[in-house]
Amino acid sequence: MEQRAHFITLATPDLEAVRRFYVEGLGWEPRLDVAGEIVFFQVAPGLLLGFFDAVKFDRDLGGAGDAPVAPSGLTLAHNVGGPQEVRDLVAAMATAGGTVLKPPQEGAFGGVFHAHVADPNGVVWEIAHNPHWRVDEDGTVRLG
Amino acid sequence: MEQRAHFITLATPDLEAVRRFYVEGLGWEPRLDVAGEIVFFQVAPGLLLGFFDAVKFDRDLGGAGDAPVAPSGLTLAHNVGGPQEVRDLVAAMATAGGTVLKPPQEGAFGGVFHAHVADPNGVVWEIAHNPHWRVDEDGTVRLG
Repeated sequence: MEQRAHFITLATPDLEAVRRFYVEGLGWEPRLDVAGEIVFFQVAPGLLLGFFDAVKFDRDLGGAGDAPVAPSGLTLAHNVGGPQEVRDLVAAMATAGGTVLKPPQEGAFGGVFHAHVADPNGVVWEIAHNPHWRVDEDGTVRLG
Repeated sequence: MEQRAHFITLATPDLEAVRRFYVEGLGWEPRLDVAGEIVFFQVAPGLLLGFFDAVKFDRDLGGAGDAPVAPSGLTLAHNVGGPQEVRDLVAAMATAGGTVLKPPQEGAFGGVFHAHVADPNGVVWEIAHNPHWRVDEDGTVRLG
């Protein structure tokens, strides 16, 4: 696995409070703002910080049914080139001691093919192929 | 506040599990590994992901005594140029609606001068002056 995170995503009870604090209060500019769903800010070259409506966050991580690790309110995302790469990396992470919370599948949000894997401390990684995501040469992240 | 995170830090019950999964299992190389305390991996240009012993994580965020927001198991860090800049930014974040969990002071770890501020959803930012931290032109993070 390349030593890289592409998204940091936080479950967020109050998206309006995000806008008031970061945008109005601190002057940040969203990279993408989807009403009632998610607000993304670029916070490092090639890295987006997402504030994701908590109800939709839980739904996005659901699906395993008997997952032994509950959603933690945080995901780290690692993007790869295609669905087969998602499957291969998830298998490698399971071999390394990870717990597959959601097997590789089409995601409910964002048009991704993805899976969720918890590390041994319960930190959740989303392994994804996202055809709408790219990073410009200067590090700027583009979505869609 | 510059739209930037410099560290993502996670409270971690089992540091040995971090080494087995990320280093031995996935082949990652720590940027800094302090036994019994913290392991840092660089996961984006200029960005470190820290796995911080959970007991020391809680101690690092303590000190306010009657903090209305409990440690969340996650901090985002934003580094500035000196102690006065820490004080000024913490004041600006409080004005923007943030909750000061730990007023500006010398930190217990890492030789930093820092403060902790929760955003309206309880996400904890560490605002720090860290004289041992720098970022090379190619994005590589140096500590000490």
